[in-house]
Amino acid sequence: MHQTFDATANPAQGPARLAALRAALAENGLAGFIIPRADAHQGEYVAAKDERLQWLTGFTGSAGFCIVLPDTAGVFIDGRYRTQVKTQVKLAHFTPVPWPEVKPGPWIAEHLPQGIIGFDPWLHSADDISALEKSLEETGITLLGTTNFIDSIWPDQPGPPMGKAFAHPDALAGRTSTEKCQSLAAQLAAAGQKSCVITLPDSLCWLLNIRGADVPRNPVLHGFAILYDDGRVTLYAEPAKFDETTTAHLGPHVKIRPPSAFVPALRTLQGPVRVDRGTAPLAVSLELADADVETMWGEDLCRLPKACKTEAEISATRTAHLRDGAAMVEFLCWLDATAPQGGLTEIDVVTALESYRRATNQLHDISFDTICGAGEHGAIMHYRVTHDSNRRVKSGELLLVDSGAQYVDGTTDITRTMAVGPAPEGAANAYTRVLQGMIAISRVRWPRGLAGRDLDPLARYPLWLAGMDFDHGTGHGVGAFLSVHEGPQRISKLSEVPLQPGMILSNEPGYYREGAFGIRLENLIVVIPAPQLTDDRDQLSFETLTFVPLDKRLIDTTMLSKGERDWLNAYHAQVFEKLEARVSPAARDWLTQATLPL
Amino acid sequence: MHQTFDATANPAQGPARLAALRAALAENGLAGFIIPRADAHQGEYVAAKDERLQWLTGFTGSAGFCIVLPDTAGVFIDGRYRTQVKTQVKLAHFTPVPWPEVKPGPWIAEHLPQGIIGFDPWLHSADDISALEKSLEETGITLLGTTNFIDSIWPDQPGPPMGKAFAHPDALAGRTSTEKCQSLAAQLAAAGQKSCVITLPDSLCWLLNIRGADVPRNPVLHGFAILYDDGRVTLYAEPAKFDETTTAHLGPHVKIRPPSAFVPALRTLQGPVRVDRGTAPLAVSLELADADVETMWGEDLCRLPKACKTEAEISATRTAHLRDGAAMVEFLCWLDATAPQGGLTEIDVVTALESYRRATNQLHDISFDTICGAGEHGAIMHYRVTHDSNRRVKSGELLLVDSGAQYVDGTTDITRTMAVGPAPEGAANAYTRVLQGMIAISRVRWPRGLAGRDLDPLARYPLWLAGMDFDHGTGHGVGAFLSVHEGPQRISKLSEVPLQPGMILSNEPGYYREGAFGIRLENLIVVIPAPQLTDDRDQLSFETLTFVPLDKRLIDTTMLSKGERDWLNAYHAQVFEKLEARVSPAARDWLTQATLPL
Repeated sequence: MHQTFDATANPAQGPARLAALRAALAENGLAGFIIPRADAHQGEYVAAKDERLQWLTGFTGSAGFCIVLPDTAGVFIDGRYRTQVKTQVKLAHFTPVPWPEVKPGPWIAEHLPQGIIGFDPWLHSADDISALEKSLEETGITLLGTTNFIDSIWPDQPGPPMGKAFAHPDALAGRTSTEKCQSLAAQLAAAGQKSCVITLPDSLCWLLNIRGADVPRNPVLHGFAILYDDGRVTLYAEPAKFDETTTAHLGPHVKIRPPSAFVPALRTLQGPVRVDRGTAPLAVSLELADADVETMWGEDLCRLPKACKTEAEISATRTAHLRDGAAMVEFLCWLDATAPQGGLTEIDVVTALESYRRATNQLHDISFDTICGAGEHGAIMHYRVTHDSNRRVKSGELLLVDSGAQYVDGTTDITRTMAVGPAPEGAANAYTRVLQGMIAISRVRWPRGLAGRDLDPLARYPLWLAGMDFDHGTGHGVGAFLSVHEGPQRISKLSEVPLQPGMILSNEPGYYREGAFGIRLENLIVVIPAPQLTDDRDQLSFETLTFVPLDKRLIDTTMLSKGERDWLNAYHAQVFEKLEARVSPAARDWLTQATLPL
Repeated sequence: MHQTFDATANPAQGPARLAALRAALAENGLAGFIIPRADAHQGEYVAAKDERLQWLTGFTGSAGFCIVLPDTAGVFIDGRYRTQVKTQVKLAHFTPVPWPEVKPGPWIAEHLPQGIIGFDPWLHSADDISALEKSLEETGITLLGTTNFIDSIWPDQPGPPMGKAFAHPDALAGRTSTEKCQSLAAQLAAAGQKSCVITLPDSLCWLLNIRGADVPRNPVLHGFAILYDDGRVTLYAEPAKFDETTTAHLGPHVKIRPPSAFVPALRTLQGPVRVDRGTAPLAVSLELADADVETMWGEDLCRLPKACKTEAEISATRTAHLRDGAAMVEFLCWLDATAPQGGLTEIDVVTALESYRRATNQLHDISFDTICGAGEHGAIMHYRVTHDSNRRVKSGELLLVDSGAQYVDGTTDITRTMAVGPAPEGAANAYTRVLQGMIAISRVRWPRGLAGRDLDPLARYPLWLAGMDFDHGTGHGVGAFLSVHEGPQRISKLSEVPLQPGMILSNEPGYYREGAFGIRLENLIVVIPAPQLTDDRDQLSFETLTFVPLDKRLIDTTMLSKGERDWLNAYHAQVFEKLEARVSPAARDWLTQATLPL
């Protein structure tokens, strides 16, 4: 599962497939069909059988959807993929649509006077479909849940993923599955709900203390579960994924049934059944309604306790970060010695970094495809190098590397931006401001009750002062050997979820100068109760989990306050102390220099 | 209208009045009655006839309400007045209730099994009564709008205020009343509304470019108005308040009618009529409903344009601030020369400050009763000195002075905290953090669209870092020769209103160490489009309006960043440049020293 650098699917087959789809739709009285880049589990990575968007259109991006109508087929893509989509789809047959600027409802109404549009209710949440239906209210267009017509015309569609499930030790989780199930069952009982349906893979894995291998990068199992108000769980997943050890680990409160038993089970449930309208497939509530089972909307009960890590999870994650930090130091030492000579490409850098991580002998997988952008590529926020885009790393440029690892004891995600040779004009000023934002979040203490929205401006303030900013959130939630992007916690102007002890987040302000360079600095942090200082106030703060040097050559020290400089020197002292015994002699020499106080 | 220092109303008469009220209620079949400290215009200051709460209970605070039941009379007061209320009411007859910790609904339900509670619908908004009704839903208690039973038993109740109205020149307002009325009328027409009811005095004064003298401190007129969708206005206010000049200034689109004509006019309106459910008296919508006139809820249309000052208003306000700044400098020069000798009391300080403002010969009024707290009094956030509380200002203490002025060209509000002799332990550290918060807000630039909530953390961050904070908002809206507290703009964790160019706000972080000292620093600022810097981003920023030195003796310069120090030095250079020619020779010498760069 090494990262690959393939650029595109083959778009040549798109037109024939599109024609076949339209014929199937016409046969069934449908004017159109929606093909999302999604599975029934709302994950960022999907299994091969769920790559329907790519199969139909050729587009390989991680987000988007296609709406096929009789005379047009719109491929809705966000700002990251505007250029890529043009090289991946046959433009005579597929029309890229800038999304979310253009909304699907008005776009459909503009291209279709009336008719029925089909969709697969297993691939959309109730919220998604409600919103789309609302936007079509005053048109002659209706939506209809149907079978999946891509599956009908895809002769060699892969089967469902069959990755082996495996036990996640209770010692790493810090709570047994029994305990978690009992605790959530008590919440169900208190709310008068007989059961709840769990459809998110990371919720499922968290609840049962298991992991899986059904999609790349995220160690999750695909399946559904029903948790009853007495703490029993039925897990609907391929029994072949479970060996004896894993089954034994699950415990007597968990029964495994094949996926085909899930819908019949839903239909015989006693209500009310709790369903998350934002994340569960619409099909779940449709089946319940069709069988007259009462549904109550409510957020997935696993999300918040999963986000608030136990002391065992935090402790294990600390260990994972030291291991990952040591690999990063070997990598940075190698990079500093090699890159200025000008012989490296972006792919060389990505490959080397993964090799250093593999050399730990404990890498389960990388946690996402490494983003490695030299020069102007650094300004492309989600740049993934391919054989086509690959370029040399030159002296006089910045190099942005955003990467992470899945270890059994924790998930990492780190970004560093390095000067290769002399820094380009304006880079030190911008780097220092990004660093100041990152330090502001690292140091902040705040009254309990505030949300990520309330901290987000602190990371931007040093950039704002110079008329600069960055167009992404400051931080996302991170799992404990689970998804590298997890909710509900975030540091973003959109996040109203109060931050709570145990939540792991990224702290990653950036700055992107189109055509010139990109800068991003990212540490993972965990919310802790703040040690009491001057007054008796209930405050929270962050503990930093990531320990890897920040490139001092890019810091304009005259811009730092004493507090900022003190933080950086203390951080670097900790980095040295924690990693010096974990790295090779050459890397130790490099580390010594890299962590000297400013 | 000099500030007075009387401590209390006479509580002795409270019991007899309470008995008379209960008799009147019983006669009318009521179990209770609510007496708010409010008038029909939701103002902070009320006229003498509206001091019903004080007349009944003896309590003189600026906020609170009394609920009289057969066996108990609760005086609901917030944290500011917990001590004061005990000295002002007869505790055998009135029970102080800590509010908002104790909510009126549950309190009533606890003390009354069933019955009807009366209230005067002119003194409560629809929102207020709905909320109270909701909290009484499952009890045997109902609410009933009635006549005001305090007015029935108050033999010598003063008449309504009869302050003269006067023209506010179009040149200061920057827009004519005709233009404002036409603009809002177009909004009414677009919303399909035939008219709207205006009940807020500052909205009324803003719309008609007039001012009044019906309450202390705020130059507002009490009255109601109906604005029609063709731009005509009928103003319901005592005709005797208007001389010929003012009437002529109002213009032909405005008709004046006596207040008694307001209700009959409401009842003959053609709907839909726009009413603000948060600020209009409930009586307005009750009368409309009773007369079968359609009501549409909608925010007072004047609030937002009133908050976004014109260039003329901002320019005039700048002039007012320079005048006020010069008076403040004379005052601070005198204070520095006099206070360390130990002979001054808090009242001496307040009186001297008002005298310096009066010496400008342009003071219309102070904009609120000056808050002047020496030593531990500084930690009482809304401390108003009285003859009883008055104490000497001693060397070795901090002195906090929060004051402001109403000039015809602008409203000011400024807080400075000074060292009298050597600073107490911990004061410089705290002062510097408060200053850093104030500087952060002064310097910030932000993407258009953010609300006061998004900036509030920047003012607190330096305090948070030390485990400190302050329990009030960072800033409130300020009018242009209008209310010193105006909405909707605020810098507060509760404020979701996007900041817009022209909004004037206070910038006033603080720190309060109970029993020791209080620190608050306050400048007024106005939102402006930020000058473009590095990137092409649409950002807003603040221009500072207040120019008065900040006490450098209390600054720990080692804590300041270069950017903070640069801001302070630039600010002080501006203060000197703008004020040196406006002050006496002695004050100029003081100013020279006070504004030397750090």
